[in-house]
Amino acid sequence: MIKIAVLGYGTVGSGVVEVIEKNKEMVNKKAGEPLEVKYILDLRDFPEDPYGDRVVHDFSVILKDEEVKILCETMGGVGAAYEFTRQALSAGKSVCTSNKELVAAHGPELIRLAKEHCCNYLFEASVGGGIPIIRPLNYSLTAECIQEVTGILNGTTNYILSKMEHEGADYAAVLKEAQEKGYAERDPAADVEGHDACRKIAILSSLMAGRNVDYRKIYTEGITAIEPRDFDYAKQMGMSIKLLALGRETGDKTLAMVSPFLIDAQHPLHMVNGVFNAVFVRGNMLGDSMYYGRGAGKLPTASAVVSDVIDCARHIGKVIMCFWDAQEAQLLPIDQVERRFFFRVKAGEGEEKAKEAFGEGLEEVRLPGVDTELGYVTPVLTEKDFAQRYEKLGQAAVGKRLRMEA
Amino acid sequence: MIKIAVLGYGTVGSGVVEVIEKNKEMVNKKAGEPLEVKYILDLRDFPEDPYGDRVVHDFSVILKDEEVKILCETMGGVGAAYEFTRQALSAGKSVCTSNKELVAAHGPELIRLAKEHCCNYLFEASVGGGIPIIRPLNYSLTAECIQEVTGILNGTTNYILSKMEHEGADYAAVLKEAQEKGYAERDPAADVEGHDACRKIAILSSLMAGRNVDYRKIYTEGITAIEPRDFDYAKQMGMSIKLLALGRETGDKTLAMVSPFLIDAQHPLHMVNGVFNAVFVRGNMLGDSMYYGRGAGKLPTASAVVSDVIDCARHIGKVIMCFWDAQEAQLLPIDQVERRFFFRVKAGEGEEKAKEAFGEGLEEVRLPGVDTELGYVTPVLTEKDFAQRYEKLGQAAVGKRLRMEA
Repeated sequence: MIKIAVLGYGTVGSGVVEVIEKNKEMVNKKAGEPLEVKYILDLRDFPEDPYGDRVVHDFSVILKDEEVKILCETMGGVGAAYEFTRQALSAGKSVCTSNKELVAAHGPELIRLAKEHCCNYLFEASVGGGIPIIRPLNYSLTAECIQEVTGILNGTTNYILSKMEHEGADYAAVLKEAQEKGYAERDPAADVEGHDACRKIAILSSLMAGRNVDYRKIYTEGITAIEPRDFDYAKQMGMSIKLLALGRETGDKTLAMVSPFLIDAQHPLHMVNGVFNAVFVRGNMLGDSMYYGRGAGKLPTASAVVSDVIDCARHIGKVIMCFWDAQEAQLLPIDQVERRFFFRVKAGEGEEKAKEAFGEGLEEVRLPGVDTELGYVTPVLTEKDFAQRYEKLGQAAVGKRLRMEA
Repeated sequence: MIKIAVLGYGTVGSGVVEVIEKNKEMVNKKAGEPLEVKYILDLRDFPEDPYGDRVVHDFSVILKDEEVKILCETMGGVGAAYEFTRQALSAGKSVCTSNKELVAAHGPELIRLAKEHCCNYLFEASVGGGIPIIRPLNYSLTAECIQEVTGILNGTTNYILSKMEHEGADYAAVLKEAQEKGYAERDPAADVEGHDACRKIAILSSLMAGRNVDYRKIYTEGITAIEPRDFDYAKQMGMSIKLLALGRETGDKTLAMVSPFLIDAQHPLHMVNGVFNAVFVRGNMLGDSMYYGRGAGKLPTASAVVSDVIDCARHIGKVIMCFWDAQEAQLLPIDQVERRFFFRVKAGEGEEKAKEAFGEGLEEVRLPGVDTELGYVTPVLTEKDFAQRYEKLGQAAVGKRLRMEA
């Protein structure tokens, strides 16, 4: 019998208890021993809950109980969650978490702390919800030099973009609907400004590089400037617009960024719609691969936490490999990144200015029945070069430029 | 330093040596110790090869060498490969294989043998080439009750079907081209008749069920009867035709089958084209997920073998968990399986016979500009019921009926 504690009895925490209960037979078989939730830490009481009698308000009860070997940290945030995780790991108790903020902010330190105390800090649920991606990167693609990890890592923004694409609706209207359905928070900034995806790509690109990619240094752009008209152009070009979180090895530097991108219909991520998430991985031997599934939600996320608990249960007293050094990865400055761009201008005046600014080599994109504006696709340029030229368009530019991902 | 041996220096075997050489730094870091290929077993000599001096012709040299801890069985077949694998495992040497025939035929026995001798029999490369799927099923989706595993598991047939779909070419012409390009064997039966996919779904559905699914009992139908006209109907219905290998839990029985299916554009497997493979997994907590990548090819397959070698290297003397009992899974007889079907009939005579045989509830599918024949989609029927009714059409039927996968 392995005793565990759940920290935070919110959506994911109660999901963890539910998964362990509902799939008891399978979970215990895979864990090698029965698992039992001994404590649930929460500020609230749950007198009606069948697990209500296990609720405690004082973390030290859990910390001092030597029977408890594994903790599920489903509190979120980097305050108490950080403190509790440090204390638990220092006491030799493994911690499994869905907390991407904490993993992105203190991952290498907590992994090292776990190692020093012969226990484990696992975080499969912190990226891609129920999609197994951390474990495949750590255990499966071990013979590969990973060159790229690009994800659609935020369900809220993917839902909004899919709706805009398929229904021609505008951003504000779709956001409102998403909030009403509970797919978006009342304060949607963490999702729509790309901060959530930024934390997740910090984690994935750190695992790719084996060194720490500091999430605070990742260029991050959200989806709030995307207009329905942008989707008309995308469609005209046989493309889609997705918020991509991108990690790429470029020689001795790592590129990490979050931004909306035009992507081609041939790209595997093109088919990822609605609240689904996916991670595209390119290895030097394997070539292209993709992992697709539900990136959020109570039970998928909880299932990932419980898979970590099972892994910990099978490795009591042993350290599971994870290569994520505290040493900082060298990031490629965004200015130096090269790609094609798409931008829109007013008809007439804009066409002249575009040619002045970019010279030859622009590809024109016209929408049937629209004569007030048109779009252009540039040749491959650095971000810096593009930005300087684009600035010259001044008032002749329409909407916001988009990056293109081949 | 961990010494390994490669059995069979063909495409995959030489790929294993190449991956270990090219990604040496990464592989050794992940393995925890440097790996060295000490022997290569082959009937041939390779005097020009940089590894030519490690070639031996006598398996007993490898078996007797106590330094050799891990073998890569990349010979194929169930004759010598079976014998060598048994002997190696009995001597406590782990074996990593890409040999789907052997795993499908003797998986549970070899896994047990490995366990008895504190070593491992791993087979990530036997299904889906470089796509990590065995390890995710065994280590990642551990908190799930897996309800379905459906794959596009054969690149040759997927290439042929994709070509037929996108170019309107007929089967024989595309097969010939595939053979010329080396995507299909001169004797293509193992691929086009579905035998290869059958072995692979036997492995995946055994892991899903935790019991042995006997590949000889899996209903298997290939793609040789598919006509270009079938794709016209598929397109008309917004669908595609794919050779699916399907494993599904249905109460107390397991359904496993291989057959061409019409699949809807919304299904994640719809986008899997050309030589790519993918596996769709449905879990009771996670919902739908998909794993996509290169299902064959020298380096992707070899990369999967080497990832197994790394796993073995990190678990010398320890048994890695794998739940695949020798006990036979109860298979659902194909007759009892329920689904919708699509069939074609001659105009006039066929329409009357179809209504006689199937009564109300057929959905008609007409192709623009075609008045000699038409198609029908049936309501949900058992395979047996459908077959009995379909037989009544006699000469009024055109082509071959297709199964539909929602």
